Amino acid sequence: MALLPNSKLFHKNNKVDPEKNPKIVENVISSRPPPTPAKDIADERARTNWDLKEMHEFLEGSEAKSTEVIRLYQSIERDPILQTRPEQFDLTQKEERQVVAERIDQMSKYIETESYSKFRRRLQLMTVIDPSMGIRILVNLGLFLNCIKGNGTQKQYDFWAKKKEAGSLKQMYGCFGMTELGHGSNVAGCETTATFDEESDTFIIDTPHIGATKWWIGGAAHSATHTVCYARLIVKDVDYGVKTFVVPLRDSQHNLLPGIAVGDIGAKMGRQGVDNGWIQFTEVRIPRFFMLQRWCKVSRQGNVTLPPLEQLSYISLIEGRVGMAADSYRIGARFTTIALRYAVGRRQFAKNGAQQELQLIDYTLHQRRLLPYLALTYAAAVGTDRLEVEHNELLANLDKGLATNDKLLLKNTINSTKSMFVDSGSLKSTLTWEASDLIAECRQSCGGHGYSSYNAFGKTWNDWSVQTTWEGDNNVLAMSAGKTIIKNVQQILNGKKLKNSSLEFLNDAPTLSKAKKAVIRIKEHVDEPQRVLKAIAALISKFAVDLIPISHQSWDAIGAQRVTLSKLRCHYYLLETFIERLENQVKANSPIRPQLENLLKLYYVTNILGPFLAEFIRFGVIQPKVAQYITSIYPQELCLRVRPYVIGLTDSFEQPDNFIHSLIGKYDGDIYNNYLSAVKITNSPRNHKAPYSEALEQMLNRVSIDERARFERSKEVEALLSK
Amino acid sequence: MALLPNSKLFHKNNKVDPEKNPKIVENVISSRPPPTPAKDIADERARTNWDLKEMHEFLEGSEAKSTEVIRLYQSIERDPILQTRPEQFDLTQKEERQVVAERIDQMSKYIETESYSKFRRRLQLMTVIDPSMGIRILVNLGLFLNCIKGNGTQKQYDFWAKKKEAGSLKQMYGCFGMTELGHGSNVAGCETTATFDEESDTFIIDTPHIGATKWWIGGAAHSATHTVCYARLIVKDVDYGVKTFVVPLRDSQHNLLPGIAVGDIGAKMGRQGVDNGWIQFTEVRIPRFFMLQRWCKVSRQGNVTLPPLEQLSYISLIEGRVGMAADSYRIGARFTTIALRYAVGRRQFAKNGAQQELQLIDYTLHQRRLLPYLALTYAAAVGTDRLEVEHNELLANLDKGLATNDKLLLKNTINSTKSMFVDSGSLKSTLTWEASDLIAECRQSCGGHGYSSYNAFGKTWNDWSVQTTWEGDNNVLAMSAGKTIIKNVQQILNGKKLKNSSLEFLNDAPTLSKAKKAVIRIKEHVDEPQRVLKAIAALISKFAVDLIPISHQSWDAIGAQRVTLSKLRCHYYLLETFIERLENQVKANSPIRPQLENLLKLYYVTNILGPFLAEFIRFGVIQPKVAQYITSIYPQELCLRVRPYVIGLTDSFEQPDNFIHSLIGKYDGDIYNNYLSAVKITNSPRNHKAPYSEALEQMLNRVSIDERARFERSKEVEALLSK
Ligand SMILES: Cc1cc2nc3c(=O)[nH]c(=O)nc-3n(C[C@H](O)[C@H](O)[C@H](O)COP(=O)(O)OP(=O)(O)OC[C@H]3O[C@@H](n4cnc5c(N)ncnc54)[C@H](O)[C@@H]3O)c2cc1C
Ligand SMILES: Cc1cc2nc3c(=O)[nH]c(=O)nc-3n(C[C@H](O)[C@H](O)[C@H](O)COP(=O)(O)OP(=O)(O)OC[C@H]3O[C@@H](n4cnc5c(N)ncnc54)[C@H](O)[C@@H]3O)c2cc1C
Repeated sequence: MALLPNSKLFHKNNKVDPEKNPKIVENVISSRPPPTPAKDIADERARTNWDLKEMHEFLEGSEAKSTEVIRLYQSIERDPILQTRPEQFDLTQKEERQVVAERIDQMSKYIETESYSKFRRRLQLMTVIDPSMGIRILVNLGLFLNCIKGNGTQKQYDFWAKKKEAGSLKQMYGCFGMTELGHGSNVAGCETTATFDEESDTFIIDTPHIGATKWWIGGAAHSATHTVCYARLIVKDVDYGVKTFVVPLRDSQHNLLPGIAVGDIGAKMGRQGVDNGWIQFTEVRIPRFFMLQRWCKVSRQGNVTLPPLEQLSYISLIEGRVGMAADSYRIGARFTTIALRYAVGRRQFAKNGAQQELQLIDYTLHQRRLLPYLALTYAAAVGTDRLEVEHNELLANLDKGLATNDKLLLKNTINSTKSMFVDSGSLKSTLTWEASDLIAECRQSCGGHGYSSYNAFGKTWNDWSVQTTWEGDNNVLAMSAGKTIIKNVQQILNGKKLKNSSLEFLNDAPTLSKAKKAVIRIKEHVDEPQRVLKAIAALISKFAVDLIPISHQSWDAIGAQRVTLSKLRCHYYLLETFIERLENQVKANSPIRPQLENLLKLYYVTNILGPFLAEFIRFGVIQPKVAQYITSIYPQELCLRVRPYVIGLTDSFEQPDNFIHSLIGKYDGDIYNNYLSAVKITNSPRNHKAPYSEALEQMLNRVSIDERARFERSKEVEALLSK
Repeated sequence: MALLPNSKLFHKNNKVDPEKNPKIVENVISSRPPPTPAKDIADERARTNWDLKEMHEFLEGSEAKSTEVIRLYQSIERDPILQTRPEQFDLTQKEERQVVAERIDQMSKYIETESYSKFRRRLQLMTVIDPSMGIRILVNLGLFLNCIKGNGTQKQYDFWAKKKEAGSLKQMYGCFGMTELGHGSNVAGCETTATFDEESDTFIIDTPHIGATKWWIGGAAHSATHTVCYARLIVKDVDYGVKTFVVPLRDSQHNLLPGIAVGDIGAKMGRQGVDNGWIQFTEVRIPRFFMLQRWCKVSRQGNVTLPPLEQLSYISLIEGRVGMAADSYRIGARFTTIALRYAVGRRQFAKNGAQQELQLIDYTLHQRRLLPYLALTYAAAVGTDRLEVEHNELLANLDKGLATNDKLLLKNTINSTKSMFVDSGSLKSTLTWEASDLIAECRQSCGGHGYSSYNAFGKTWNDWSVQTTWEGDNNVLAMSAGKTIIKNVQQILNGKKLKNSSLEFLNDAPTLSKAKKAVIRIKEHVDEPQRVLKAIAALISKFAVDLIPISHQSWDAIGAQRVTLSKLRCHYYLLETFIERLENQVKANSPIRPQLENLLKLYYVTNILGPFLAEFIRFGVIQPKVAQYITSIYPQELCLRVRPYVIGLTDSFEQPDNFIHSLIGKYDGDIYNNYLSAVKITNSPRNHKAPYSEALEQMLNRVSIDERARFERSKEVEALLSK
C-alpha cells in the first residue's frame, strides 16, 4: 500500500521538549514509515550459514526421505484439488465435507499411480493440512484394513483389500466400528453381540441397547460400504468376548441395507469434514466366513478354537500411534515457523526512545515461550523418524517370521513389539499433548492476529485436539506405558534382562536406583548430554522402584505417577536418538552441528530438566543447588544462542507457503500486506451492510418505550384510569 | 430406549470356565442391562446434606446477589430469544450473527425496563452462554462509553450516552477503535493521526499507512455508527501522543460516511458472531468538540493543555478485566459441572470381575485431573466477587472525591486504584489462563463425547481463548503486575509503607524476606490455611527481593519471573478472601463448613503449593522433606474427602440446564438418552446420503485405470506402436 497524504510527519523527531513536558514524551513515538517485516525477515534469513537441505535431511532421517518429502510438498502445492486456499477457512461444515470428498477422489488417483510407500507419505503430509481428509482415508486404509490384516486370514485380507479393492479406495469403503456410546477405552466391554446361528450358518449382529450403539464411527454417516464391527462372539450361549466381523452397511448403489440404522453424529469441535456416524444393528445376518478368523475360529458346528499368539492382532493398533507421533513433529514445525516468522517481523514497544520498536523475538519472555518448542520440534523430528523406522522393521520381521516359521525371529520380534507398545504409546500421548500446547502458545504469541482463522491456529487446534483422545486415550495409554515400565523394572530387580527391547537401558535399574550420588551435581554437568540421558534413566529407575510397593496394592493409586513415567520415557527416547544421530549423521565441521548442539541442549534443559525438576531433586538425581541454573540462567543463555538463527532453523523444515497455510506465516514475511489483501478478497468491503443489518437498524431506530406501550402508562391514562 | 430382543443374555454370568480357558475371561464381561447414569447421579445427589441456596450465597458473596443471579438464570431460560438450544451448535457464521443480532435487540428491551445493575448482571450471565453477544454489547456499553466517561467531560458523556441514547442501545452504537494492524499492546504507538486544522476548527483523522489500519474493531464491520478513535494528536506540527476522539462511521440510515473504509476481518477462531472490522480513515474531518477533553484540551487557537491526573483516565480499563475474572468463575462452574456429572454417570473398566464397571470419578487419576479445578472454581468465586465489590467501591469513591473535591478521599482512592491495577491484571490473566486449561482438561476427561459440539466444550474454548489476549494481553498484564510488586517491595525495603492498598501484606516484606526458618517445615503445617497464606507472602517477598538487582539492569530479563509473581499475587488474593469469608460468613455448625474447608485446602495444595513447589523450596519457604506430602499424599487424601459430594458441590453453582447447554451435562444425568435423541433431532437419520455423495460414489464405481487411460498403455498398443 502506498503512503497516504500526510506522510510529511514521517521521521520527524518528537518536537516536545522533554524537560518542559516530561509527561508527554513517555512512550510517545511519532508516526513512522510503514512497518517492514519482510525486510526484517529477509535480513535475518541472510544469517543462515548452512545448507537447508542438509538440515532437512537430518530432520527427516535420510537424504531419500528428505527428497521425497520436498517433492511431495511441491506436488501438493501444484495440485489444483489438494492445494490449500485462504478462503477454505471460511467453509461451513457442508462445504468442508464437499472439499474433503473431492480431495479423497483426487487421492484415489495417486494411489493407482505411485508406490504405496510414497502414497502413504503423501497421505501423512496431507493429514497436516487437511486432517479431516487424512483421517477419512486412514479409517479405510489404516484402521479398517489393518484390523482385517491383524485379525483376518491372509485370504480374507486379500479378498477385501485386493479383490474388492478397498486398498485402492475403490468399490468398497471400510469404516472402523469399535467404539460404542457406552464403551471407548474399555474395548473388551463392548456390548454389540454376534450370535452364531448354527441352522443358517450365520452370525446375527445386534445392538442390545442404547449403550451399545456404535458411536463416532468415521465414515459411517455417509461414506462407508462396510464396517469392521467389534462385537461379543456368542456361541451356544457362551460369551467368548469381543471379536471382529466384517459387516456390510450399504449396497453397491450406496443405499443402506435393511437392519442397519445410521445417523450423522453432527457438529464437532473439529474434523467437521468427517462424517462420523452412529450405527444400530437390528438382527443383521452375515455369513460365518465374514468373521475375521486368523486367531479365533468358529466351525460349521459351532466349535470355537482360540489359538495362541492372539496378542499379535494388537500390533495393528500401533501404526496409528506411530503416525500421530510423526504428525506432532510436522505440526510443531508448521506452527513454530509461523510464530517465529511473526516474532521476527512484528515489532512492539520501543526501548528507551529507540528509533524502531523491538522485534517480539528480542524479548526474553518471548524467547522463553517459543524457543523451547522449536527445540522440542527438532527432537521430535528425529525421534519420530526412528519410531517409524523401527515400526517398519518390526512389521517386516513379523511377516518374515510368520512366513518362514522362524521361531527365534518371532520370539525376538515379540520382545521388540512389547517395547514398541510402550514407545508408541509414550510418544503418541506425550507428543500429541505437547503439540496441543504448542499450537495454543504459538497462537497467543501472535496476539490478536493469532485469533484470525486465516492464520491457521484455530482450525488446527480444533482438528488436532482429538489426537489426545482417539486410538488410545492419552491418559489410558500413558498409564499403560508406565505400568509396563514399572513391571519391567521389578522383573529386572528380580534378575531378568531385557533383550531385543528399546527399554534395555532399564537393565541398569538395579545400580541406578541404588546410587546415592546425584548424577547432576554441578552446573557443568548440565552441559553433558550423555550425563543428562543417564540422569533420566536414573530418575525412571528410582521412581519406578519407589512405586513398586504401592503397585502391589493398587495400580490405580499411582495413575498420575505412571503418566509421569511415560512422559519421561518419551523424552529418554527422543534425547537418546537426538544424541546418537547428531554423533553419527552430522559431519564434525558441518555448520549445522553447532546449531543442533544448541537445540539439543535447549531441548533437554527446558523440556526435561526444568519441568521434572521437582522429581529430579526429590529422588536425588539432581542437586538442588543446580536448580536456578536449570530454570533460569542456562535456558536464557541457550535461547540467546539460538535466537539469531530462528529464520534459518524454521526455513529448514522446508514447508512451503501453501503447506504453512497462514497469512502471517508466509516465507516472504510481508505480514501486513499478505493479511489485509487476502482478508479483502475473502470478505469484500463492499458488503458493509450485513444480512442481519435490518434487525440492528430497527433496534437503533425503535420508537420510545412509551409509544411501544401505546402510551398506556402515561400520566393522562393514569388520571383517566384512576377515576 | 427399550431393550432389544436378545436381551436374554443380560445378567447371565460368564459361562466360560476360567480354569480351562484363562485367556478368555480376562477383561471379558457379558452383555449387561443398559447403563443407568441418571440413577447413579440421583443416588449421589441424595448425599447432599446442605442447603444449595446457602452454598450459592457463599459463592456469590451475598444473599441478594445469589437471589438475583438465580432469578436471572430463570428469566434467561424462559426468554424465547435469549435461551439456548442444542441446534445452535450447528450454526454457520452467518446464522450465528443473525442469532446474536436478535439477542442484542432483545437485550435492548431489558435495558429499558430493569435497573442498570440488574441489566449488567444479566449481561454478565449471557456472556457465558453467548460470548459473541456479550462482547458486542460490552463494546458499546463498556469500552465505548467507558472511554468517553474516562476521557471525556461530563457533558460529552451525557450527550452521547444519554441524549444520543448509546447507553440504552438506541440511536447510536459505539465501537472501540484502539488496536491497529501494527499496534496492539503498545497503545502509545498507535499511528492514526488527528491533525488540528485551525482554519476550519476541525481535526483531520487519517490512516497514514497500512500499519495504522484500525483492526479487530468489534462492531465496525456492520453495526457501529460511531467509534472512539485512538489517534495521535498533532497540533501545529507537534505530536502530543495518543488521545481519543469520537468519529462517526455511519449516518442515521446506517450507510458509511465518506472517507471511511471498513471491511469485515472475516473468519475467526471463535466469537464468530462478532463483526470485527478494519477501518481506514482518509482525511475524515470531525468538529474540535468531538475530541474527548476531560484531561487534554485544544483551544480554538490550537493551544494544548494537559492537566495532571490524566492517569485516572486509565481506570476505565479496569472494568473489563474485573468482568473477565468473574467470567472465569462462571465458566469454571459450568464446565466442572458438566465434567463431574459425566464422571459420575460414566463407567469404564471393571475392577477384577466386578459386576459393574467403575465410575470414572472413582479413578485416582480422574480425581486428580478434575477436583483441583473444582476447588479453584470455588476460590475464584469468592475472589472475583471481592474484586467486583472493591472495584465498585473505588468508582463510587472516585466520583464522590471528584464531585466534592475531597483531596484526602482522592488520594486514598488513587492508592487503591494502584493496587486495583495489580489485582485486576493478576486475576484477569491468571484466571483466564486457568479457565482455558480447565475447559480443555474437562473436555479430555469426557473422552470422545467431549469432542461433540453439543457438549459445549469446543465452541466455548474457541470463544474463550481470546480472553487471554484482549483488553491487556495476559503476559503483558502479568509482567506489569509483577513489576509493580517488585517496585513496591523495593520501596518498602526503603522504608515506605503501603496504605489503602490491597498489597499491604507486602509491608511485612522486610521481615519475611529475611526469615531464615522455613514457613512450612512439617506436614501438619500444610493443614493450616493462615500459615499457607504467610508462605505465599514470604515467597513473593523473597522472590521480589531476589529480582531487584537484576531489575536495575533490565526489566526485560526477568519477564518470566514477573509473570510468576503475578500468578502468586492472584492466588494470595483468592486464598486470603476464601479464608476470610469462610471465617466470617459461614456459621460454625453449618453443613457447608466442612465442605468448604476441604475445598479450601484442596485449592491451595493443588493450585498453589504443588505448582510452585520448586520456587517454594528454592527460597527456603517450604522444607524439601514435605514435598512428597504436598505433591502426592495430601492431595490424594483431600480428593477422597471431596469425591463423595461432587454432585452437590456442582449443583450448588445453581446453573440450570439451559445455561449449562450441554447434552451430557444435564441435571437429570440421563446422559445417553439426552445425547442420542438430540443428535437425532439435529441430524435426521433420514439423510443418510450426503449432498457430496455423488463424488464418493463415482470414485468407488470408477472404471479401471486402463480404461480411463483409453487402453493406450496396453500390450496390444505397445506391440503396435513399437513396430
Ligand atoms: C472425532 C472422533 C472420531 C472417532 N472415530 C472413531 C472411529 O472411526 N471408530 C471408532 O471405533 N471410534 C472412533 N472414535 C472413538 C474414540 O476411539 C474414543 O473416543 C476413544 O477410544 C476414547 O474412548 P471414550 O471416548 O469412550 O472415553 P472413555 O474411555 O470413556 O474415557 C473417558 C475419560 O476417562 C478416563 N479413563 C478411562 N478409563 C480410565 C481408567 N481406567 N483410569 C483412569 N482414567 C480413565 C480417560 O482418560 C478419559 O479422559 C472417535 C472419536 C472421536 C472424538
Ligand atoms: C476477537 C478480537 C476482538 C478484538 N476487539 C477489539 C476491539 O473491539 N477494539 C480494539 O481496539 N481492539 C480489539 N482487539 C485487539 C486486542 O485488543 C489486541 O489483540 C490486544 O490488545 C493484543 O495486542 P496485539 O494483538 O497487537 O498483540 P501484540 O501487542 O503484538 O503482542 C503479541 C505478543 O507479543 C507479546 N509481547 C508484546 N509486548 C511484549 C513485551 N514488551 N515483552 C514481552 N512480550 C511482549 C505478547 O505477550 C503477545 O503474546 C480484539 C482482538 C481480538 C482477537
